Amino acid sequence: MYNFIDLQDTIVALATPVGSGAIGIVRLSGNQAISIANDVFKAKDLQQVDSHSIHLGYIRDEQHKIIDQALVSVFKNPHSYTKEDVIEVSCHGSRYIQQQLIELFIRKGARMAREGEFTLRAFLNGQMDLSQAEAVADLIAAESESAHQMALSQMRGGFSDQIKELRGQLIHFASMIELELDFGEEDVEFANRSDLKDLVSKILTIIKRLLDSFQLGNAIKHGVNTVIAGRPNAGKSTLLNALLNEERAIVSDIAGTTRDTIEEILNIQGVQYRLIDTAGIREATDQIEAIGVEKALEQVAKSAILIYVYDQNALSPLEVQADLQKLTKAEMNVILIPNKADLVQQAKGKHPFETDQNLKEIAQHLKEQYTTLSLSAKDKTQIDQLKQLLFDLVASGQLQQDSSIVSNSRHYEALKAALQSLDSVLEGLEIGISGDFLAMDIRHALNSLGEITGEISTDDLLGNIFSSFCIGK
Amino acid sequence: MYNFIDLQDTIVALATPVGSGAIGIVRLSGNQAISIANDVFKAKDLQQVDSHSIHLGYIRDEQHKIIDQALVSVFKNPHSYTKEDVIEVSCHGSRYIQQQLIELFIRKGARMAREGEFTLRAFLNGQMDLSQAEAVADLIAAESESAHQMALSQMRGGFSDQIKELRGQLIHFASMIELELDFGEEDVEFANRSDLKDLVSKILTIIKRLLDSFQLGNAIKHGVNTVIAGRPNAGKSTLLNALLNEERAIVSDIAGTTRDTIEEILNIQGVQYRLIDTAGIREATDQIEAIGVEKALEQVAKSAILIYVYDQNALSPLEVQADLQKLTKAEMNVILIPNKADLVQQAKGKHPFETDQNLKEIAQHLKEQYTTLSLSAKDKTQIDQLKQLLFDLVASGQLQQDSSIVSNSRHYEALKAALQSLDSVLEGLEIGISGDFLAMDIRHALNSLGEITGEISTDDLLGNIFSSFCIGK
Repeated sequence: MYNFIDLQDTIVALATPVGSGAIGIVRLSGNQAISIANDVFKAKDLQQVDSHSIHLGYIRDEQHKIIDQALVSVFKNPHSYTKEDVIEVSCHGSRYIQQQLIELFIRKGARMAREGEFTLRAFLNGQMDLSQAEAVADLIAAESESAHQMALSQMRGGFSDQIKELRGQLIHFASMIELELDFGEEDVEFANRSDLKDLVSKILTIIKRLLDSFQLGNAIKHGVNTVIAGRPNAGKSTLLNALLNEERAIVSDIAGTTRDTIEEILNIQGVQYRLIDTAGIREATDQIEAIGVEKALEQVAKSAILIYVYDQNALSPLEVQADLQKLTKAEMNVILIPNKADLVQQAKGKHPFETDQNLKEIAQHLKEQYTTLSLSAKDKTQIDQLKQLLFDLVASGQLQQDSSIVSNSRHYEALKAALQSLDSVLEGLEIGISGDFLAMDIRHALNSLGEITGEISTDDLLGNIFSSFCIGK
Repeated sequence: MYNFIDLQDTIVALATPVGSGAIGIVRLSGNQAISIANDVFKAKDLQQVDSHSIHLGYIRDEQHKIIDQALVSVFKNPHSYTKEDVIEVSCHGSRYIQQQLIELFIRKGARMAREGEFTLRAFLNGQMDLSQAEAVADLIAAESESAHQMALSQMRGGFSDQIKELRGQLIHFASMIELELDFGEEDVEFANRSDLKDLVSKILTIIKRLLDSFQLGNAIKHGVNTVIAGRPNAGKSTLLNALLNEERAIVSDIAGTTRDTIEEILNIQGVQYRLIDTAGIREATDQIEAIGVEKALEQVAKSAILIYVYDQNALSPLEVQADLQKLTKAEMNVILIPNKADLVQQAKGKHPFETDQNLKEIAQHLKEQYTTLSLSAKDKTQIDQLKQLLFDLVASGQLQQDSSIVSNSRHYEALKAALQSLDSVLEGLEIGISGDFLAMDIRHALNSLGEITGEISTDDLLGNIFSSFCIGK
């Protein structure tokens, strides 16, 4: 568990990734950072130098043995990441040296930093709000353009500034209403009910938009689960290879070539899709295939987007319909891919479903119900169009820089709770509920919103958040 | 191959280890480093700021899209590692951000640095000599106290300062002798032969000491191969565990328990020993054991130190002698371990070799020939003494801070070549050889010594040395 008693300590940790490199950085933060550094670095009195200055010299241990020649950067409070005195020792990137430096600083009075403690201190010292602090971890973990932009936007204030402002206005009403309560029986009304209703409606609109953005935010952060499914030999693996533009999956004419599910990351305009190729779905002919089919069905159930691929020259619309009824769920996005467009000419006239009026109607109905794109995976036709479809399903115009997107499930839960409380407030206003109930619902909403920015926080909450950081951040 | 034409370019590379961490550093060096940084960092005009100053701001790409909020450190030539203008961008430790920054700088006119190119430039610009540059790589790779101290000493000048000075004196003589040659037939002698002889003798003494230190230097750098060998059930694995003070190898009373060779690092007073436990050596009873025995013999052949372990209560001195004759080589250090000292009392009187005068003499002879330490691996007696023996064999008084130790095989070869040339000089002086031959030998020696410090270097040599560095150093 996180322990908050010792925030007065000076902390030390390796700030660069573990391993060998040209440079490694050992970072100190706290009241004693400069005096500890002075103790081992004699080239200059670091108390006397300017903030944001760099000094070259030897770091020596208690026996005056040289540990390294290093560059020491000095950041004086409050002009540092943590708003405390910070020392960064840029040493040769040797694990041995880094370890020796950390041990030396600990002997000199620093203690090992806890996970995320530099950022926790930055938060506690008012350098950033809680959602901005959380964005630091997201920023480091971001692996795609969109995830990076989203984290950056959140780190720069993002929607938390908006929430802070609305919350401020709501606080005003809360105190007015609480003031009314002090007057007890006198039936005064300091808080204009109509203005309050307007404000709550406005906040609700914003919260709803933010809640809606979570699906996108979550997808951007973790990648969009996209499964390619269909019958054996429909060309699923060929389509996967075409989308990735490489020979990732083994393809052959033999039905049932793919057994294991294959997962690859596809980046479309900065959004990551976890593309999953599955075994063809049919009554399995052997044990191994049966396991493959089972896995395929599991993957489909977990996916946000289903790309259903079929051989348009062989499969009747009735069978397609049956498959889709079996595979799709309510909230799933489905793209229908009539594959093997390259063989349409030579297959023409060979199948009853081309002429059967009933089947033609089913085919028409499927096209209306599902986004459909006929293509040839083998010839890689329409692949860019398919990528655009995939992008539109997720991002559809929501992805501008600095747009407010919620990607953190903690924020999502807090927003949902705030929504509920504010709905109660609106409802209460409608039926003219008494002030004390109104005040209670508003307080709940204020709490929920405050948890996002950290204006309301508990040690447990902070411990939870920062313990998922790495040490050194 | 290394290309030296483009040293005027501004180079860029990631300087911190690859991976995620709190901080990553992207480093630029060259004429355009500051102007390139200025192009993407608008918070301040970096041309105007002081050297060794740090500046916070956003890094933006060509579309003004923010890549990161970063700290930019400025080092102005010649006050930098490379003696060129250097910019270090300390960004969030995300691989995505680091990649984006490097790509941005390349679009702005930098090129990717080659392996070790920052250090190569430091060498070419006179920041350090070649052996110091090589020590940078050693310093980063050092994993033990002694390897670290050795690299640090070499980086700070170490023996190369000494060599440079002696080489300077030798150059003086070389030019004197070459001047004599200009006077042709006139039989003048500008170079005092007796002084030259004194100088060459002095240099030879130093070179011999340096050559002698190479065994230690190499051992410190790469670890000392130390093999534990002996018959089955002699207690080899028990001894390994006792030395490591952990249950690393599986031990049992069953002869032939160890099959694979087990290798572990043992650190004694800062020197690393690669401790290798082997299968017991005997006529193997099965295929697997036979392979084990073969591997054991291979390991013994490669080792610098052989720890021969035997059960002193069971094995006759004759058998010990036979084993040692089979196992030892000329340059090998051998420690004889009569094991199972804890069982001596109860075994007393059971074996003919305790009374046989002839065998007693062999036993005495073995003790005189080999360093011998009777102990009980099981009871962990005398283990510290064994460690001290191991340390003495390698380091015996040679390991002081700032002592000149050669650890680089390139330096070793160059010193050997210089030794040879200087031996010829001495010989020539003895027999009163003519000045032109003397001059030639001195030039050879000067070249060899100059290669160590880099006063003499070729592109090939530099390419060889720096291509083994990592990119970013």
